[in-house]
Order: sequence, then C-alpha cells, then structure tokens
Amino acid sequence: MVGLMQDWPLTLDRILDHAKRWHGDQEIVTRSVEGPVVRTNYAQVHSRAKQVSNALVALGICPGDRIGTLAWNTQRHIEAWYGIMGIGAVCHTLNPRLFAGQLCGIINHAEDRIILVDLTFVDLLAQLRDRLPTVEHIVVMTDEAGMRGVEIPGALCYETLVAAHSTDIEWGGFDENAAAGLCYTSGTTGDPKGVLYSHRSNFLHTWASLSADVFGIGARDVVLPVVPMFHANAWGIAFSAPAVGAKLVMPGPKLDGESIHELLETEGVTFSAAVPTVWQMLLAHLRGSGGTLSTLKRVVIGGSAVPEGIMRAFRDDYGVEVVHAWGMTETSPLGTIATPNGTIAAMSDEDQLRYRLKQGRPPLSVDMKLADDDGRRLPHDGKTFGKLKVMGPYIARGYFKAENTTILDEEGFFDTGDVATIDEHGFMHITDRAKDVIKSGGEWISSIEIENIAVGHPKAALCAVIGVAHPKWDERPLLLVKLKEGETASKDEFLAHLRGRIAKWWVPDEVLFVDDIPLGATGKIDKKLIRERMRGYALPAT
Amino acid sequence: MVGLMQDWPLTLDRILDHAKRWHGDQEIVTRSVEGPVVRTNYAQVHSRAKQVSNALVALGICPGDRIGTLAWNTQRHIEAWYGIMGIGAVCHTLNPRLFAGQLCGIINHAEDRIILVDLTFVDLLAQLRDRLPTVEHIVVMTDEAGMRGVEIPGALCYETLVAAHSTDIEWGGFDENAAAGLCYTSGTTGDPKGVLYSHRSNFLHTWASLSADVFGIGARDVVLPVVPMFHANAWGIAFSAPAVGAKLVMPGPKLDGESIHELLETEGVTFSAAVPTVWQMLLAHLRGSGGTLSTLKRVVIGGSAVPEGIMRAFRDDYGVEVVHAWGMTETSPLGTIATPNGTIAAMSDEDQLRYRLKQGRPPLSVDMKLADDDGRRLPHDGKTFGKLKVMGPYIARGYFKAENTTILDEEGFFDTGDVATIDEHGFMHITDRAKDVIKSGGEWISSIEIENIAVGHPKAALCAVIGVAHPKWDERPLLLVKLKEGETASKDEFLAHLRGRIAKWWVPDEVLFVDDIPLGATGKIDKKLIRERMRGYALPAT
Repeated sequence: MVGLMQDWPLTLDRILDHAKRWHGDQEIVTRSVEGPVVRTNYAQVHSRAKQVSNALVALGICPGDRIGTLAWNTQRHIEAWYGIMGIGAVCHTLNPRLFAGQLCGIINHAEDRIILVDLTFVDLLAQLRDRLPTVEHIVVMTDEAGMRGVEIPGALCYETLVAAHSTDIEWGGFDENAAAGLCYTSGTTGDPKGVLYSHRSNFLHTWASLSADVFGIGARDVVLPVVPMFHANAWGIAFSAPAVGAKLVMPGPKLDGESIHELLETEGVTFSAAVPTVWQMLLAHLRGSGGTLSTLKRVVIGGSAVPEGIMRAFRDDYGVEVVHAWGMTETSPLGTIATPNGTIAAMSDEDQLRYRLKQGRPPLSVDMKLADDDGRRLPHDGKTFGKLKVMGPYIARGYFKAENTTILDEEGFFDTGDVATIDEHGFMHITDRAKDVIKSGGEWISSIEIENIAVGHPKAALCAVIGVAHPKWDERPLLLVKLKEGETASKDEFLAHLRGRIAKWWVPDEVLFVDDIPLGATGKIDKKLIRERMRGYALPAT
Repeated sequence: MVGLMQDWPLTLDRILDHAKRWHGDQEIVTRSVEGPVVRTNYAQVHSRAKQVSNALVALGICPGDRIGTLAWNTQRHIEAWYGIMGIGAVCHTLNPRLFAGQLCGIINHAEDRIILVDLTFVDLLAQLRDRLPTVEHIVVMTDEAGMRGVEIPGALCYETLVAAHSTDIEWGGFDENAAAGLCYTSGTTGDPKGVLYSHRSNFLHTWASLSADVFGIGARDVVLPVVPMFHANAWGIAFSAPAVGAKLVMPGPKLDGESIHELLETEGVTFSAAVPTVWQMLLAHLRGSGGTLSTLKRVVIGGSAVPEGIMRAFRDDYGVEVVHAWGMTETSPLGTIATPNGTIAAMSDEDQLRYRLKQGRPPLSVDMKLADDDGRRLPHDGKTFGKLKVMGPYIARGYFKAENTTILDEEGFFDTGDVATIDEHGFMHITDRAKDVIKSGGEWISSIEIENIAVGHPKAALCAVIGVAHPKWDERPLLLVKLKEGETASKDEFLAHLRGRIAKWWVPDEVLFVDDIPLGATGKIDKKLIRERMRGYALPAT
C-alpha cells in the first residue's frame, strides 16, 4: 500500500526557490575577486541564476552535460551553481590548487563542455586551453572591464552573458536521482575518481547538516563558508544557508587571517567552517593584532584533525565553540560530527575535550562500522582499530565512468581508507590512513599517533613514522625526525619522550634524523614518497 | 544522467536502528498507565519493537494491513509503532477523545485487523467490540496482572505476546513510498478523512522538524511530548527524538499541570510540545504552587492559536521560549513555525511578540500561497486575507479510500480550509476558518479577530461572531455575547469596545446576549451549531 502524500521530488532548485520566496531580502555579501565587497540577496541571486540557465541553454547545454567551475566562493559562483543544476546539467567544481596536469586530466575525464572561471585562474586555464578538446566555451566570471586583461581567445564575459538572457525558464521537473554535481577526490594516485552527487543526495545532506547537533544554523545566523565550494560543496553550505535563509558571507579569494577577521567582524558572522590551516592563520592574526571575535559563536573544523591548541584557543581566548567534523568527498561530506551527547556535555570542559577532539558520531542516515582485513565487524570499545566503513543516502556507491565497479562491501558499506576506533558513546576517532597503519605481529599501530607525540619533542620540526619490514613481526615502526634548525639530538632522547605516552610495543625500533620530510600538495606528509625513499632500508638487528 | 550515490530508502525503521546503534543507552522514561514511572532505553525499545513485529507476523499481519492503537504516550506505544511500521504494516493511531460512534466508523473505514489498547480505554473498546467486524484481535498494553480486570473476550496481553517472540526479524526492504501511518482528521462533518502517511513523508518531516529554527533538538535535549501520538504523530516527536538520540519523557495518561510539572522537573526536561490548554493548566498549577521551571528552555505550542498571556508568562515569569507552530493532520503536521528571522530577532521583545504570535513561516520544502475564491494568488502584504494553500513532500495529496479524488489545485497545492495573511517577513497569520469568514461587499471579515477583541471586554465570558445574510452586503457580522455570571451590558458598550480596535466596516451590525455559546468536542466554539440555531434570523434594518 502506497502512502497518499504529495509527489515532490527533492531537486536542488527548490532550495533557492525557498530562499527567494521566504527570505528574498536576506543578504549575500561577497568580497569580490575584483576587490570590492558586493552586496546582493537571495531574490536577486535567484533571478540571475535563472539568467545563467538561459545562457547555458543558448550555448547548447542539455541535461547531464558537465559544466566546470574554477572559482572562489562568491555570489557569482552560487548563481552559476543553481543556474547549472536547475536545468539538470552537472556542476563540476574544479580545485584550482591541483597541478595543471591533474586539472587537465580531470576536465577531460569529465568532458566538461563549458568552464566558468574566475579572473584569478584565467592564466592557469589559458595554459591548458589547447589540451581541453571537449571544452567549447570558457566564461570568465567578471564584467567587460575585467575582461580587458583576459588572453583566452573566444572567452565569454559572464556579466554580458547574464545580461543578455531573461529570467524566464522553468527549473526542475526531472528525477531527484539525476546527477547534480561532480567532484573529484584529491587522491594523487591512480585514475581520477569523480564523485557524482545527485539532487536527492545533496538535498538529504542539506537536511542532515541543518539539525541542531550538526551545523544547527537558522535564519538568524550569518554564515561564512571559508571552505571552498570546490571542496565537497563547501561542506554543503551552498545549500544549507539558503535552505534556512541565513545571511551568507562569501570570502572570495582572500583567506588570510586579516581578511577573514575583517569579514567576521564587519558582517557579524555567527557561524563559519574551514580546515585547521585557515583557523591557525586567523588565530595568529588575532594574537598579533589584539583583535577579538565579537559575534562568532561556532566554527566547524574538518578536512584534517583539529589540533588541540586551536580548540583551546577558540574556547578559552575567544569564547567560540569548535565543532570537529569528519568527512570526505565521497560522503558529501558530513560523515561524523563531535557534538557532545548528554553524558559528555555533563563532563568538565577538560574531559569533554577528549571527545571533542575525536571525529565524532554520525548524524541520522549515516551508519558506520569498523572491520578487520577479512571484513569482520570489530567492537566499539574505543581501543580496537579497524577499517572505517560508512553507509547512507549521501555516500557514494561508485565513481563517474566506473559505475560498474562497486566500491561497496557486501553489506553496502563504503571503505573510507581510514583506520579508526569507535568508543562507547559512538564517537569515532581516526587513528591512521589504512595504507599508513603499521601491522606488527597481527596488531595495528597508528603511525599518526606516534608522529603527533614525537613532534611534541621540543627539538622536533617534523616527524614521520612508517612501517618497515621485519622478519619476525612483519612490520615495525621507524621514526624519521627533522630537527629544528641548529638542534642536535639522540635516538634515546626521542624514544624516552615516547615511552609512557604510547604502548611499549609501539615504540619505534629505530630513529633516523633527516634533513627533509616531504609534504604533498595539500600540506600532509607524503608517506608514499618516504616509503619509496626508504625502500631497501633494513632495521638494525636487536 | 543518474547520480552515483547509495540507494538508501527512507524507511522509518532506520530511525530506531540509528537510535539503538548510536544512542542505545539513552533513556525513555514513561509515567505508565498502571502508575509507576518506567525506565528503558533505545536499545531495549528497539529489541521489544522487533518482538512486536514477530508477534504481529505470527497473528497473520501482512504489509499494508492496518493496526489500530488506542493509547497514551508511553514506551509501549513507541515499541508498537516501530514494530508495526518496521514490517510495512500501517499504524493507525486512534483518538480516544472521539465519540464512540466516530471511533467505530473510523476503525471500520480503516479496516483495522488488530487494535492495541491501553487499560484506560478498554471499556470504551469493549462497548464497541461487536460493531468492529474487521478487528480480529485486541491486544491490551499491559502485563498479566493488568489483564485481571479486562472484560473483552479473547483479548491478548501485550507483555505476554512480546515475551513469546524473538527479536530476530528483518525490518524495511520495501519502497520508501509505502504507507506507514494512518490518522483521521478531527473534522466532525462528512465522511471520515484518513491521512495516509508514507515512510518517506514521515522521514522527511523528521529532518524538517530537526532544523534549528523548527524544533532544533539534539542529543543533549530531554524531550517531553505532551501532544499525543494520536495527534499527527505527536507532531513528529516519536520520530525526531530517536533520530537525534534525545532523552524521551512520555507522560502517559496524566496531563494535568501538577503531573506534567513533576516530570518536567524530575527528568530535567528541556523541550516540550503541546496545545495551549495543557500549558494553561501547567501555568495555573505553577502560580498556585509557586513552582518553577528549572531546566525547560523551549516549548512548541500548536493545535490552536497561542494566547498572548501564555507566551508572556513563559517568557517573563519562567524564562522559557515559546515557539508558535501551525499545522494539521494533512501536513504531518509542521506547516509553519514562528521562529524570528534576523530582522525580527533584532527588534525589542514587545515588537517580536507581534510576529511570535503569528503562525509563522514555512521550513524548507513547504511552500504556501494565499488565493482568492477564483484561485488567483494574493499579495503577501500582511493585510490581504486569502485561502491558505500549502504544498510539500509531507503534505497529503488525497485521503484513504479516496485516492482518485484529488484534493490539490492545479498548481498542486492543498487547501487548508483556513483564511490567512502573509506578511513581508513571510509570517503567516490565520485569521479565520474559510467557512467562518464573513464576506461583506466582496471583502472578507475575520470572525475570530472580532471575537478575540470582544471577549477582552471585562463583562464577557464567551463571544462568537457569525455572518448573517444581508440584502446589500451579502453578509454582515453578528456578535453573540455570553456575559459573566451576574453581569448586565448593552449593545453599545460592546460596540464601543470594538470601535478603534477594528476597521469601521468590521463592526457588527448587531449584538445579541445569549445564555449559551456551544463548544465542540475539542473545546472550540461550534459555529456550525450556532449558524443552525440562528437560521432565519434577520438583522435589524438600519
């Protein structure tokens, strides 16, 4: 028997429709790529997004076609998104921080027909232009004045294009499972992996993110997404802010501490989201300038683990709550959030910190499990490590152009590639990447935990731990240390620093002092390269 | 092109699964029908709900079959709900406040195969038993001790039934559009109108209710739904509390001020929801006893308009925020909520009150319009009255056994039967029921607004306004006044009281003093009966 409720497909155009109808006057403030702060509102952005749709149709775009965007967080990027998605085309957000060759590979894999690009990235795109055979048009997101320096033959001016088209076009009318967005993972190995979001998955993710224990934003909030729209939909904020009629503050290209602080204060921001690096820059600026945070209440931090110092500084020095979240491109991205439950909230601030520094618990519709190498479930005891696998309506089941290669296990879970524990409160804690975990005598050792403690040694600048082959234990940990300039140290100093802080059998078999620990494009330690460099290394016999 | 996200049907069993897995220890506290306070948790309720499922299957229940519940808000009612819905059967919540004849008609219309009944209502059901041909089993929600006084031949004992079955059964696996719940509207006229909720509609309603501007509850909240589960799913709380792992406090049969106050304080309730009458009883008790509200932060009030005095008392005397909500059985029920947006929140408390006393604005996925008699859209200017029509994924498109009779207009909107205004902030304000509005010279007059002002006259006990036929204006308002005991008053006193408070042309043509103003089953003025009594009445010539 079928229920008798209205048929109302969950398509994303309805989110901006809602914002226009019920929060039309609500502001969207952008620090523009050209420089000045630009003010608009949901009603105007809705109209202009409709004009974008008509422009795309005039350029021959059909449902399912991919349109690339290479752009900062701006009101134009929002317009373009909804303009693309509203007619059933697919918005492919490109990460300008990728190497040119990666960018090229991804655009060609996606077969983007049009690319919308910010002035900042015009030169980058110009240098690739000849290697992008599927790209028919490049639209520069500026006005005619901004076009003057643009040196891409045939490039179109966004403002001229928008002005040339009417707002008269219908959105939606397609299945809610239609593709809406395409975002490639930042993985640097193997084939490009494109996550193809559907209208339904992004819509459900929006609702999941809006609940009080997740983002909990409302119409009174002023939301500044520092996290870029090309990082898993700005963690969904490009949908969730209009969904509730929150004021939206878009930082454009300037993400330094001073620029972000200025926007936080002048626009009365209450809620923001970014990776730890951004907050480190902001806190450094505040310390240097003596600045305060007079309206900010809550920041969500994800992308990598929140350093304890950031959480303490926000809490103790500025009265801002830090909410730690975890996710990945494949999880839309909100997988877990470390909001206390009732039991944890009743603890002292110090005790709460232990949980707040974990990656947290899943919101409604996300399920997680820990599994061993054979796929068996492991206990949620806060100690046992396992492969972290996740399931839910906004989690990927496959990659673009690889639909038939399942990435799910028999129970339908996606393997995140992380290794984690889950405690008795359901709080998940990532202990390592699966490929970096050290398997010693059938047990797992977290390379990251040892690194985090080792780098706390006053003489250490950078530390890396990798597993090295061992005849008896399979693998044993090796610690590489890059000392601070001018320092000297012994193996025993570092081992003494570790002892008592980690299990005895976790203590590395050897410590090597090196003059370089390589970092990847995203600033993380490049263990793959370290393992290559150390190939053939043998631990000293004990 | 179809997105590549996981196929994860929105079935309601997943909500209790989530609560069990991630908040299994969280308490559900019930003031039981038998008397004592009973404590359980989500993990245990999940297990017992599975046992209920097996019991139902053993009794021959198949997907789509209707199971009635005639019960208070208790942990057993929650178990029964999820046990019924988990196997694809339909939970038909029966309102015990209906007249016996109505109840009988509704059970027979629904063709309930089993009825689960609380001890309180056994006698009511016993008296109907012979007129319920489709009902094969009656299950009394008590243990063997409680069964002693039960005088329904063949009645089954709930606890014995649960204990006899295992927890081993799969839930879900059906389409998310499958029917989950059936709830008849409280309308006393015409054929029974059953709203058939789907798993999808209730799931989406859950998410809508969880956003910060709606209920905004989380795992730290302690939630007391006074609103019964037979009133549009306790406004969804039977789903939304487990969805976020909130502690649930179930009041059982005792809804008086003292009993509710005791639970609020002993269980540390932070959030509650009920109709105005309940809060009037609570406030009266608090005033009499000198009691306080030490943990309560927010109450949602709906079902009928919030009297200003209740909102002020909660705010000024007890520091509790009142959130006014509007909805109906057909809207699952959350249609609107009067949470301030940024502009309203910046106003003084007094100015905010003007908006907080309105029914409010729609959450994401609900759309509304005002229409005239010809279906034309009317402006949202805060003054123009129109028929209120609503649309969304958790709003009904038809009634049970009347699937082919559409109740939607050409744009897909459902006519609520209310007359309302919508202001520039999108705040909707119900001014009347469509059938009670007075049409004078082509313009609409709100009978309710005149009544509300007239009853503010110090001599008035009750006031009712109806439209009476008029040769020139079609209809003109007539005011009926029931005076407080011992009072005498003149027509002019009442007209003087109204003048200046309402538009001149709204002032009633006549005032009649009566010794009785009839009330319906739900305590509202029975205008239908008044109109019948006044049939043939002619206004004095002016």
